[in-house]
Amino acid sequence: MLTRIDHVGIACRDLAAKVEFYESVFGLTVVSMEVNEEQGVKEAMLAVAQGAHGQDVSYVQLLEPLGPETPVGKFIARRGEGVHHVGYGVADLAASMAAAEAAGLRLIDARPRHGSLGASIAFLHPGDVGGVLTELVQSARATRANPG
Amino acid sequence: MLTRIDHVGIACRDLAAKVEFYESVFGLTVVSMEVNEEQGVKEAMLAVAQGAHGQDVSYVQLLEPLGPETPVGKFIARRGEGVHHVGYGVADLAASMAAAEAAGLRLIDARPRHGSLGASIAFLHPGDVGGVLTELVQSARATRANPG
Repeated sequence: MLTRIDHVGIACRDLAAKVEFYESVFGLTVVSMEVNEEQGVKEAMLAVAQGAHGQDVSYVQLLEPLGPETPVGKFIARRGEGVHHVGYGVADLAASMAAAEAAGLRLIDARPRHGSLGASIAFLHPGDVGGVLTELVQSARATRANPG
Repeated sequence: MLTRIDHVGIACRDLAAKVEFYESVFGLTVVSMEVNEEQGVKEAMLAVAQGAHGQDVSYVQLLEPLGPETPVGKFIARRGEGVHHVGYGVADLAASMAAAEAAGLRLIDARPRHGSLGASIAFLHPGDVGGVLTELVQSARATRANPG
């Protein structure tokens, strides 16, 4: 089901400072910055690796909460800054969600929603994945390649 | 400096059960199981993605502590099961360690040590990387390609 590590989602208090850190120290490149009101975050995607055709395949996703009552805001209040979730690539999100549900995993999202870079995403409940908030990601590229 | 997400290290209480879960539900494949006495863990590496030449490029690393007084044992006692660290690929570990130190990051490992699958690794202090225990990984493949 999982075809790659799409991204590691990292909660931080100061997005601009962390972006500067990952760029200057680790040599990563920002490919997208956006505000996701639905998820209550301001976020940056930084490319970590390129595939055989030069396409980005993995990212560090830095997440700053829009407020203390958002999920990421509560996460930081409870556990501090750090890894918030792991996003894995899937070829077919709807099929992967159905398979996860059939395996007894709780879906946080009953239907796919919009993620970074035009992707379709859905989260699985961390209580069913050994404490790991797990995101399934069908990239916009995969969506175009496999309409429907 | 970072060339890919090498692995996500996930702390768990029951390695065999978690391996079975990631294999059966997520379709991953175990490529290595080993005991690392130095790090106090029993671990499995499961391949998530293949590169252009069919080589493995990213892994889920499942970690079961050998005892409660090990770093991973203490992590689970404090925070529960979940993401323990993130490992990134680097082309030249010694150069990357020197660059990290020059940038003011504390190295947990003053010298490279042995990681999974024959890799050379070093950990950076999470307090300097926004709460993320960060591992630099020079794979055995890269080591062979760049002797010295």
